[in-house]
Parts: sequence; structure tokens; C-alpha cells
Amino acid sequence: MYIVILAGGSGTRFWPLSRAACPKQLISITGDRTMLQRTVERVLPLKPKRILIITNSLQAEETGRQMAQYRKIPIDVIAEPLARNTAPAIGLAASIITAHDPEGVMVVLPADHFIKDEAALQQTLINAGHSARNGYLVTLGILPSRPETGYGYIEADMELRGAGPFPVRRFVEKPPLKEAVRYLDAGNFFWNSGMFIWRADIILKEIEAHLPDLAGNLAKISFSGDVWELSDLKEQIESVYGSVASVSIDFGVMEKSSRVQVIPVEMGWSDVGSWSSLPEVVEPDDSGTVCVNAQEHISLDSTGCLIYVDSRVVATVGVNNLIVVSTPDALLICDRERAQDVKKVVEELGRRGCSSVL
Amino acid sequence: MYIVILAGGSGTRFWPLSRAACPKQLISITGDRTMLQRTVERVLPLKPKRILIITNSLQAEETGRQMAQYRKIPIDVIAEPLARNTAPAIGLAASIITAHDPEGVMVVLPADHFIKDEAALQQTLINAGHSARNGYLVTLGILPSRPETGYGYIEADMELRGAGPFPVRRFVEKPPLKEAVRYLDAGNFFWNSGMFIWRADIILKEIEAHLPDLAGNLAKISFSGDVWELSDLKEQIESVYGSVASVSIDFGVMEKSSRVQVIPVEMGWSDVGSWSSLPEVVEPDDSGTVCVNAQEHISLDSTGCLIYVDSRVVATVGVNNLIVVSTPDALLICDRERAQDVKKVVEELGRRGCSSVL
Repeated sequence: MYIVILAGGSGTRFWPLSRAACPKQLISITGDRTMLQRTVERVLPLKPKRILIITNSLQAEETGRQMAQYRKIPIDVIAEPLARNTAPAIGLAASIITAHDPEGVMVVLPADHFIKDEAALQQTLINAGHSARNGYLVTLGILPSRPETGYGYIEADMELRGAGPFPVRRFVEKPPLKEAVRYLDAGNFFWNSGMFIWRADIILKEIEAHLPDLAGNLAKISFSGDVWELSDLKEQIESVYGSVASVSIDFGVMEKSSRVQVIPVEMGWSDVGSWSSLPEVVEPDDSGTVCVNAQEHISLDSTGCLIYVDSRVVATVGVNNLIVVSTPDALLICDRERAQDVKKVVEELGRRGCSSVL
Repeated sequence: MYIVILAGGSGTRFWPLSRAACPKQLISITGDRTMLQRTVERVLPLKPKRILIITNSLQAEETGRQMAQYRKIPIDVIAEPLARNTAPAIGLAASIITAHDPEGVMVVLPADHFIKDEAALQQTLINAGHSARNGYLVTLGILPSRPETGYGYIEADMELRGAGPFPVRRFVEKPPLKEAVRYLDAGNFFWNSGMFIWRADIILKEIEAHLPDLAGNLAKISFSGDVWELSDLKEQIESVYGSVASVSIDFGVMEKSSRVQVIPVEMGWSDVGSWSSLPEVVEPDDSGTVCVNAQEHISLDSTGCLIYVDSRVVATVGVNNLIVVSTPDALLICDRERAQDVKKVVEELGRRGCSSVL
């Protein structure tokens, strides 16, 4: 089994902790390991043959630094020269794996999700592996806990009982609330997690069928000798990426393929979309407060605050439902309901030319 | 004219900017000069013969450092070994001045008040000087702008019209609101500013009459030669202070003396009692926000915030009426109505043994 971690995302909602060269997956909002490190450690018990991390050139150095401590399993950090969404990144990883191990099974994982029940994930990946070996494109579907309108859904055909995998009827884009409520009641709709398990050669064939241009470009990369040491891989990737179109694996392949299956899983999953997700990742205290990394926190009549500070003493007096994030060069004070607007702060900082904190 | 600045106060309401060894008068809540430096610069146009700063041993070093830039007028920093309220500090200063210049006029000023109209203060001190030379104890009374219950009041006998000085009928301790409202309407009640002008020999005589024990202790200090260079003054002060009682000049002398006069003055005065006083010292913007020392402030839908940050970028999103104070080792987020409770934070930090931020 090969693990492919998609780690090239950018994002501004965790400012000021996240920066352009150090986005969400490379930071630690829990105060210990980064999201990427947690993603890697989560799959180490599966003893994968190799871990491929697909990132971009801006983040490659920090990514490599964060991986230096994992020595038992080979980890490759592969930098895309351009962001082209998930299909090219997955296709590239599949090409590399196929060249080395034609029927290798690859697990695709986003680098910036939180999973509380890691054993559940590991067991599900093992189950999914059987199906993948038989040629299916298996996707993990998260059991929805609320009528979320910000996620995509997967409708399963659950006529056959059991734990799955189940055939997939359709993929649904972010639904209106009324639909989302119906999905929650129906019981056979699952959040699209972006986690996949398949054989590398099978996904390449599906890319060839549904994204022939991408397949053509990937075919230009030539692998010879020991692929893992291919010295000119970087140059080859750079030469083909200019003509690769941006497309997601969901839209480009999954919604069109007839080989797709879904395995429902409940594992305390969170996509940690903004600072307001902090309580999904770190247990709040009795006052609903989460305080990460403070040297000391004095709270007088304060509730529901989400606090991340850089080893300083922090005191809150008579305040409620605030997001407080402090780094050595920046400070954010944000109403908890307005966590989505942190990206507007970053936009405004860009307009004002405050590049040192971006 | 000699200026005596009482600068030995401690206080915790400006935490985390203020610390035990660096209280309110030694910090700059406006982002430029400290309260003490502003107090000194305010009287430099009067060309005083000398400035005496009475402080304590914990703050003496920082006080001296802050005075190093003023070279045109001699400044003495005198450290009390123990805090004994204002009467001993004033008596000590008067003893030193009298030894040098028996009929010298001394102006007593707190080190931690803000005055917007400095010309008004200077003119009032010149006027008060005439009265002081004639043997009166002149106190400045601030024209009240609200029925404040946290200050002492001075009732003037204003039967004789004019700008004053007026005879004083009585000193009133912090009054209940009903009384304070009546004082505001009456027009002859003024806030006790703690600013005094008198001859050094006269205040010593009054101390002798009303505080004979203090006078006896002060008389033990012997001055010979050039008093300003007296090498053993520190040791002499330390040897007498142990038996000096703690008493304020108001209670000990002013409330009992028949020589007291008051000059009403309107000069944009603030005692800057807590972080909530910041808008009295720094003009708020259209949203009622004051932001001091930030590298940049991004405000989205935020109003009425009082912000002091250490040269960092600060962003406020959807928050109102907060006090935000950031230093390299501590961070305070406080409802604006709870500014008085900052001292409770400091007490709690003491209980938890967080001495590094106290």
C-alpha cells in the first residue's frame, strides 16, 4: 500500500498562524504536531511501502523539514510547479507508483483533515484495500452529523446491507439546506471526504478514459532505472505541467466512472475549516473555552473563547465567544461567528502591502 | 521655583504594559514618552531651578534612565526606602529645598496624570506662585465634568469673584453619587488634583504644626555643604524612614491648615485611572477606536476598541468595546466596562506564581 498525501493547498482562514509559505497543513493548531505530521503518523501503523507528499514549490522546503523525523518509511516530497487541483496531482502520483509497482494500491489523503478515531480510519483503509485490489475506485464517505451545506455528498446504493463498500448512485455538489436535511434523514448520503483507495494502474486507466489530455501529458514523463531516485523527475514534471488543465478528481473521474464505491465511516472527522473548528480538535473546558499554547490563561467571567497564543500569558476578562490568535508579529481578535471573514483580513493586508505577515 | 514630582506610585490597572518595577508613570500608554517624561516636559517651559523626583528603590533605576535625556535642568531622583504616602515624600522634598533655598517655592505634581492643555497648567502655576510666595498653601482644583464618585472634592468659598485663588471651605472624601451631582450643580466644588504650590519653609512649618512626629524625623536629616551633592542623603533617609508613619498630605495637613487656597483650572485633565481612560489621552477614530503602537490595524465591523500592541499587525473582526493589550510576554482581552478588574488578573497571576509577568 502506498500513501499519497495531497498537501499543496493554500488558504488564509488560519491567519495569523498560517502564512502563504506555511498554510493550514503545515501548522499546528493543536499546539503539538502539524496537520501534515498527524496525517503521516495516522497511517504509519499500516506500514505503507512508501509515502508520497504532493505539494508545491513554495511549501516544499518546510514540508521536507517536517518529514525529516520519520525515518522508518521512505517519504518523497514532490513539488508541483503550478496548482492544478486534485486530478493532475493524483495522476502524477499514480504514474510514479505504477512505474515502480504496477498493481500497487494507493491511498489518497488530504493533509489538512483531523480524525479523532484513527483506528477506525486504519480499519476502513484495510477493508477498502480489498475492494481496491479488485479494481474498484473506493471513496470514504463520512457519516453526516448535521445538515452541512458546505460539503459535497455521495449517495450510496445501500440495498445490500452490511458495512460496505456500497455502489455509488451519484455525487452531489454543496446542496441547499432543505436538501441537506433530507440527506441527513435518508441515511444513505455521506460527506465526500476526499479520501480514496484504488490501484494506481486502475486510476490511470480511468484518467485515460475521462481525462485523456491529462493522461497524454502524464505519459510524457519517462521513468527508467529506480524511479524513486529519478534525478530529472522535477524537470520532467515542470515541462508537462504548463499544458495540464486544472480539474478535480471528483468532477474529472469519480462522477463519471462506473467503478466507484463508497465505504461509510464514522471516525470523528473534521475538515478544520476555520478557527471556529478548534473545539472539534481540542476538547473545550467547562466554560466552552479552548486555549492552546498559552504559558498561563487567566479567565475572569469569560466563556466560549478560542485562544491560540505563542507561549504567552493570556488573560480574558468579561468576554465571550471570541477567537484570539497571537503570533510574534500579528494578533487577531475575531467574533466566533465571523471566523470565515479572517480571509477578508488577509485580503486587506495584501491591499495594504503588509507582505511580512502574509 | 522647584518642581517636586511624586513618582513612587505602584499600581496594577495597566497590566500587562505596567509591571511592578515599571508602573503607570514609567510607561507610555500613548506610544511615545512616558507619563513621567510628559510630566517633566510639561513644566520645562517654566524654567524651574531644579526638579526633584521622589520615587522608590524598585523604580529608581528606570526613573533615572528616563530622565537622562533632560540635560538643561538638574534633576534629582530620590528613592524612598518605604512607601509612606504623600506627606513624608513632600516633607522630605521640602527639607532638601529649604536647606538650599529657604524661601524656595515648590510645585508638587503627581507623575501619572495627563493634561491636554499644558499652557493652562503653566499659567495657573505662575498665578499660584504669587499666592505661594505670600505664604499660602495653594492647591489646584479641577473643574468637574461629571459627577465622579471616585475622586475627592474641594469646596471653595467663591464669594469673591475672579479666577482665584479662593479660600477653601473643606475637603470632601469620595462622595456618594447624590452628593457628587449636587457638587457638579453647585459650581464651587472641584476635584482634588493632588497638585500643590507652596513655599518649602511654609509647608515644613505646617507639617511641624499638624504632623510633629514627621517633622521630628525630617529634622534628623542634616544638610551641610552643597545639599544637592550630599553623598550620605540616601543613608540618612533610610535611617529615619523606619519610624515615619504613612499619611497623606491631604489628611495630614491640607484638611487642617488655615492657609489653604484653591485655584480652579480647566486643562483637559485625566488621572488615567485604567485602560478605559485611553480615549481621554489619545483621540479615538470615527468608530470610537483607539489603536496605539500597532504596525497596522485592520478593523472589520469593529467599534469602540481600545488597543495597545507591541508593533504588531492587529486585526479586529466583528468585536466591540474591547480592551486589547499585547506585550511580548502577555496578552489581555478585557471588556471595556471591566477595566477595573485588570487588578484581579494581576492578583491571580500572583497566586499562580507567574512572577515573570508581574
